[in-house]
Formats: sequence, C-alpha cells, structure tokens
Amino acid sequence: MCNDKLAALQARWADIADLTHAADVLEWDQLVNMPPGGARARGEQLGTLRRMAHERLTDPRAGEELAAAEAGSPPAGVRTWLRAARREYERAARIPSALVAATSRAATEGYAAWVEAREHNDFSRFAPALARLLDLARERADAVGHNGERYDGLLAEHEPEMRTERLRTIFDEIRRTLLPLIEAIGARPQPSRAPFRRRLAESGQLRAGEAAITAFGYDWRRGRQDRSVHPFSTAFGPGDARITTRLHPDDFAVGFYATLHEAGHALYEQGLPEAWARGPLGRAASTAVHESQSRLWENMVGRSLPFWEHFTPILRQCLPGAFDSASPGDLFLASNVVEPSLIRVEADELTYNLHVALRFELELALLHGDLPVADLPGAWNDAMLATFGIRPGDDLHGVLQDVHWSQGGFAYFPSYTLGNVLAAQWMDSAHRTLGDLDALFRRGEFGPLLMFLRTEIHARGAGPTPDELAEAVSGQMTHPGPYLRYLRAKFSAIYALS
Amino acid sequence: MCNDKLAALQARWADIADLTHAADVLEWDQLVNMPPGGARARGEQLGTLRRMAHERLTDPRAGEELAAAEAGSPPAGVRTWLRAARREYERAARIPSALVAATSRAATEGYAAWVEAREHNDFSRFAPALARLLDLARERADAVGHNGERYDGLLAEHEPEMRTERLRTIFDEIRRTLLPLIEAIGARPQPSRAPFRRRLAESGQLRAGEAAITAFGYDWRRGRQDRSVHPFSTAFGPGDARITTRLHPDDFAVGFYATLHEAGHALYEQGLPEAWARGPLGRAASTAVHESQSRLWENMVGRSLPFWEHFTPILRQCLPGAFDSASPGDLFLASNVVEPSLIRVEADELTYNLHVALRFELELALLHGDLPVADLPGAWNDAMLATFGIRPGDDLHGVLQDVHWSQGGFAYFPSYTLGNVLAAQWMDSAHRTLGDLDALFRRGEFGPLLMFLRTEIHARGAGPTPDELAEAVSGQMTHPGPYLRYLRAKFSAIYALS
Repeated sequence: MCNDKLAALQARWADIADLTHAADVLEWDQLVNMPPGGARARGEQLGTLRRMAHERLTDPRAGEELAAAEAGSPPAGVRTWLRAARREYERAARIPSALVAATSRAATEGYAAWVEAREHNDFSRFAPALARLLDLARERADAVGHNGERYDGLLAEHEPEMRTERLRTIFDEIRRTLLPLIEAIGARPQPSRAPFRRRLAESGQLRAGEAAITAFGYDWRRGRQDRSVHPFSTAFGPGDARITTRLHPDDFAVGFYATLHEAGHALYEQGLPEAWARGPLGRAASTAVHESQSRLWENMVGRSLPFWEHFTPILRQCLPGAFDSASPGDLFLASNVVEPSLIRVEADELTYNLHVALRFELELALLHGDLPVADLPGAWNDAMLATFGIRPGDDLHGVLQDVHWSQGGFAYFPSYTLGNVLAAQWMDSAHRTLGDLDALFRRGEFGPLLMFLRTEIHARGAGPTPDELAEAVSGQMTHPGPYLRYLRAKFSAIYALS
Repeated sequence: MCNDKLAALQARWADIADLTHAADVLEWDQLVNMPPGGARARGEQLGTLRRMAHERLTDPRAGEELAAAEAGSPPAGVRTWLRAARREYERAARIPSALVAATSRAATEGYAAWVEAREHNDFSRFAPALARLLDLARERADAVGHNGERYDGLLAEHEPEMRTERLRTIFDEIRRTLLPLIEAIGARPQPSRAPFRRRLAESGQLRAGEAAITAFGYDWRRGRQDRSVHPFSTAFGPGDARITTRLHPDDFAVGFYATLHEAGHALYEQGLPEAWARGPLGRAASTAVHESQSRLWENMVGRSLPFWEHFTPILRQCLPGAFDSASPGDLFLASNVVEPSLIRVEADELTYNLHVALRFELELALLHGDLPVADLPGAWNDAMLATFGIRPGDDLHGVLQDVHWSQGGFAYFPSYTLGNVLAAQWMDSAHRTLGDLDALFRRGEFGPLLMFLRTEIHARGAGPTPDELAEAVSGQMTHPGPYLRYLRAKFSAIYALS
C-alpha cells in the first residue's frame, strides 16, 4: 500500500521534472536560437508546460499520496525524499491557481512594460505594472503564510529558512565592514584595467573562457556554451548543463567572467546525482547555494592571484600577442579594481553587495507600502548617493536596470549576497580539508576543489536546507564572518591598506 | 452546452499541439545541439511529452466531447474542424495504449539494433528486432481495422484514403513507364557531373543554398537553417519552421539539394494558417502532400533549366571562381544525371521511384508473412538486380540503408512517390493558372508559384483529404499521369531520346 503510494509519488515527480526540463529546453532555445516569428507560439507552449507541471504538483491526490507515504514510517532515504517533496508541495499548493495565473499574466505584462520603459528611459511607463505586481506579491506572501512580516513569505520561495530579521542583521554587518573599506580604497591609487581594455578577436575570447572552465572541470560532453544577450546557465538534468556568455569587443573581462560565473552554476548541476534527476532531491539546495557556486568559481578562484599565475600563459596562447606584456599580477589587479558604479552586474566584488543591500531595503519598503511606487526612482537615486556618493543621471542607469521586479521576482536579490557568504564558508572549509589551495591553483589543479564541492555540496542535492548544509560543511549556519574576513584580507593586500 | 463542449475540445487540442510542438523542439535540439550526456534524460522527457499528448487525445472524454459537438449541427467551418479532429481521435483511440508503449519500446530497441547492425555491416543483428516490430505492426494494423489487407491499416496512418490495391496500380504504371525509359537512357552518353564535383568552401555552399531558398520565399524571420547528420525539417507552428542540411566537401549537389528539399517542407509549414496552429486543421493534409512540396521545389523547380538560367550568376557570386566556366545548361545537366545506384537518398529523379517501389513490395511480403525476415537481405539484393542490374555488395549498401523500418515505420515509403505524383498535378495546375512558369523562373520570380501553393494547398491545412485536395486543385484525384508525362518530357530532352 505504502509502496504503491510511493511509486505513484515518484512517477508524479518524474512527470513534473520532465515537464519542467522540457520547458527549460524551450526557454534556452528561445534565448539562443528562436527566430522572432516563433515568439507567440513559444509563449503558449511554455504556458502549457508550466501549467501542467503546476497542476500535477498541486493536485489534491499529491497531498494524499504524500500523507500516506509519510505515515508508513519509511526508511531514512525515503524520508529525505518525502521531506523535500512536501516542501515543494506545500509551497505550491498554498497559492491558489487563480493567483498563479494572475501573477503569470502580470509578469508577462510587467516585462513588456519594463522593456518599453527602458526604450523610453521613463520609469512612469513601468510604474502601474509594478504596482500591480506588488499587490499580487502581497497576496502571494499572505497565501504562503508568515508571522506578520510579509517579506518572509516571499523569501521562502528562494531560501527556505531565511527570515527578514536575520537578513537585516547580515546586511548590517556587511555594510558596517564594507563601507569603511571602500572609503579607504577610494583614497588609494587605482590599479589599471588597461590589460583587459583592448580590441580582441571574439574567437580568442571564447577560447580563453573555454580553456579556463575546462581546467575547472566543466564537462563538455554534458554541456555546451552559446552566446545570448544576457548570460545565463540552465540544465535539463546533470547530463546536459549549458551556459551562455556575451562578448564585449573592447573589454575582455565581460565575456571571460560571465563564462566563469555561469560555469560555476553548471558545475553544480553536472554534480547533482543522476539517480535523483527526476525527483525533488535532484536540484540545488536553494538559490543562494546555487549562487555560492558561481561566485566561488568566478571570484574566489577566477579573480585570485594563483589563478592568474597559472592561467596567464594559457591566455597568451588563446590570444597571441595581446597579453605578452601583462604579468599575472597585472591581470590579477585588473580583475579586482574596486570602484563605486551605477550598474550592479558590472560592479566589483566589494561594492556588489551594497547594490544588493540597496535593493533589499527598497523592496521591503515597497512591499510594506512605506514607499509609494511613484517615489521609487527618487528613493533609488538618493540611496545610491548615500551609499556610493554617485547619483544616476536617468532611470536606465538607476531603477530600470534589473529585470527581476518586472517579472514579479521580489526577495530574490538577497540570494546573491547570501551566495557570496556561503561561498566563503565553503572555501574556508576546503582550505581546512585540502590544505594550500593557492599552491594547487598555481599548478592549475582545480580538481581537488571541485571534488570537495562535489562530495560536500553537489552530491547532497536538495536533501539538506541551506543552513543544514552550511552546518554540515563548515560547522556553522549561514553567517558573513568568513566572507568579510576574505574580502578584508584580499582587498587590503591589493590596495596596500594597513 | 455545445459551445462548452467545443471550447473544451479546442482547449484539449491546443494542449495536444503545445505538447507535440514542445517535443518537436526537444527533438530538433537533440539532433542539432544536444551534448551526448543529455541523451538519457532527453529520451525520458520526450517519452513523457508524447505520452501526455496521446493520453489527452485518447481520453474517453475526448470522444464524448466530439460526439456532443457533432450532434449540435455546427456551422460548416466547425464541421471541418470536427471532421479532422475525429479522424485523429479515431486513429489514435483504436490502438490500445499497451500496444503504443510496446511499439515505442520496440522502436527504441530496433533503432539501437539497426545502428549496431550497420556498425558491423551485418543484418542478422537487426533481424530479431525487425521481426518483433513486424509482429507489432500486424497488431497495429488489426487494431486500426482493414478489409483483409493489413497493409491498409498501416497506410492509413500516413495517407487517409489510400489503399494497397490502388497503390499497386500506381506503382505498376510507374514501373511500366520508367523501366524502358531508364533502359533507353542507359544506351545514351552521360552528361558530366564534374561542375558539382569539386572542393568548395562550406560557407559558400551554405550561402548558395540560402540564396536559392530566399528567392523561393523562405521567411528567415520564421525559420533558420542548421547542420545535422541527416537533413530534416521541423516546425513548431507557422512562425518557426526550421531546416537542417549537411555538406559534402567535394559534392556541391549534396548540401544544395538537401537545403532546397527541406525548404520545400518548411515553406508548407510557414504557409499553414496561424489561427489553426493549435488545432487539427493546422497541419499537412498527409505525408504525401508534405512530400509533394519538398519534391516540387527540389526537383521541378531546382533541377529545371530556367532555374539554372536564373541562379548560375548568383551561384558564381556565392562561390567566386568555382563556376566561371559552367554554363546554366551544364549545371542543369549535372543536376539531372540518371544512373541506377544502390542508395535511395542519392538516387536521381527517375530511379528514385523504383527504389520506393522495391521497398513497397518487400514490406508487403514481410507484413503478409510471405517473406521470412531472415530471407530479406537476399530478396532485397535479388530485387535490386532485377530492377537495376546491380547487386549490393553488402547489407550496408542494401537492406540496412534506411532507418524507417528500424523505428517501426512501415507503409511510409509510398508517400515519397505519391508526393512526386501530387507535385506534378500541382505544377500542371499552376501552369494553367499562371501561364509560362519557365519565363517566371528565368527572371527569378518564384513568388507567383509560392502564392499559388499558399492559396491552393497551404491555406487549406488538413481540411481536405489528399484526394479532395487533388480534386480541388487539379480537377482529378491522385494519379500518376501528369508525373509520368513530366518525367518523359524532361528526360527525353536531356538524353535526346526520340
């Protein structure tokens, strides 16, 4: 009886996974290959697949099957499976399908309005859609449930255990450390970005990125790289984890670090257990844990001096003549210039987190109704001035820069910084386990680090919650101590601070 | 009430179309982009999507909805819709789902066995799988229903009205005309293939194919061309109809005519009414009608002298220097060399149909049990000797050359020749309507012909049956008269036969 229910549950989750992965293939194709004429039909196909996946997940029979399977005192492995399945089920089943449909429509309209507002560099064209999306987000938060803090309800979609109060504490601590650090850096001479700022052949730029991630362990038999307007990664199971990048003809860092970042995501996906691919365990533990992998490879490895000591001769082979006079140290410095700037995705490792903190505060105020939508551009620009001493000249370089809110993605930004935080916890632990990582990197040996991440993180899939994972790997729950120590040490050295 | 049922039916067919098109995207990706590691999960995803589409189509409620909608004396447009939907429903609902699943498994195993047999050039490794597939095909034919001729039951999957007896008559007439014609040609000097047999840059080869199909009217905003091992076309609605080609470094004709052929299919898909895309009318009238479009553009246009009179200067621009000494007449002749050969897909316009006839006879004998599977290679080679006077030296150049049977595709081959037959009927009718097509082609004006096909064929979708379509467009049901007249006239001129 219990086995029957369990088999039915597993078949249900296999269908959900297949529908979801099929939709992911369609979205990849949409961004990489689809001719413009395909847009309308593709929207309908995606809507149908996502709806069918949602119907299967929220079907009352799913709840009955879950309850029956849980009641049968199953063995530990099955219990883990059931716990992850229940988390997914609860999250989805609490939201009425009318609200799901309304949110989906509002997201499509919101995205279109955001694109139009960007074309006219005019936030007011986006404001009504944003107000509507905020109303729906409040409804969603209330449907999910919370203890008076609506933001918690939205946060739960990305970070199961995180709470707004705890996030505030983390961001306060980050701000307290980073603001004086950035100020001190501002008084020092800047390293030169010149080594990266030159016209380079696209083929050579691509080869360099491919060489770097091949060294990291990206498996090309289970992935591929293409180009798209905005870089992204996606996976249809551990056997097919793809990345995209974009290239800037005059700035090598743009494409190279996009490749490293997306490969970090894809390495995680390639490391998820194949046997779990069609169930609730065969995915990332949370958005932040996913982000921890990309930021780790991009920044903690790819912007380190030992990496450049290894990679500089390879880069010279990929782009003959272009880097002959640049030393590893020059490239290390060029990839770590700290400078307040207007655009989050172009920000350096330090100021990046303050961009995130700013969005966290603003979306909290929006959600609580403390900040009217019409006042958002002004509030954004004031916050930029207060944080970085610079004020965006227009909405395009301010409030209209990120796509997230236009698609109803609230409470998403914090996961970026939580990912940085977790990445530092993983690196501390890897240091303890593997010894001198710098010496390994200098020799181009990234395999031990990947194997550590595979064993400690990837192989566990969505079994543990992020905090359980942090505990298991680093001995402590998610906390910013190691990350802030890492930043202080790295940038004090680069900028010769006392 | 009736409107409710109709709305439910339309929503059901929209879901089926979305699931089917999503599966088609996944298959395109599989053949064009997918890394090898993605194969296993992709197979599962495709199985799930195809199963869900089949479940929706054969759901008993679909039958009830159909019956209720039909009973309400609907207007003519709705009646056409319902007739096409019922045809699809009946075809699918008669086959038990256990048989569908068994056939799907046997097809997967059959394909794998065929690949292995090809690797070892040994038919016996494929024989057991073929025998199993034939058993299942007999079951399928009986489930569909027939009047004692099982082949009719299989034929119905591709050509709704065609019967085995009628096919025999058509093939007899074709053989009676073509065998003496081919014999007479064999006694004449051969034109030279040399203009196409030279090493050419791949980029130039691709540009030439693109230029030709752009002139035909292929809409690149609603399609794209890629490369794959075997050329194919696929569409996810009229807004996204894609083609692939393959290139031979030393034979221009291979890639060029693959592009023209697949573009013929894609022009049909691009011409299907957008408003019907998610229902039973928004597709080809039959496999043969689809094939009539590809063969028409590839052969009747692309291998004509007026086409080459127009296209030779463009070809010279695409591949500078390579065709300076070839006249339009030389290229016309080079693309029309008639010569008995072992491989169907490489055959010329005349002998091609005899390859098809041979397969038709053999699969009939296999299905009836008159020919044991073990004796197939011998029977194949004997038939080749009797037809063409040449005997394959091994299975690879004989019975193992085509993929169709390995995937359970029986009664499919005749559609190729029926497509040729229909294409000639369309061309006769186009001549009557548009006047001197040769003069148009010589000026590079292919728009009138495409517009004729759009109006007469594409715009009707799956509304008419193939014979109804043939009647409406040419005044006669499917019959080989015009095709044989076309072949006789064309090749008598080329080979200066009296």
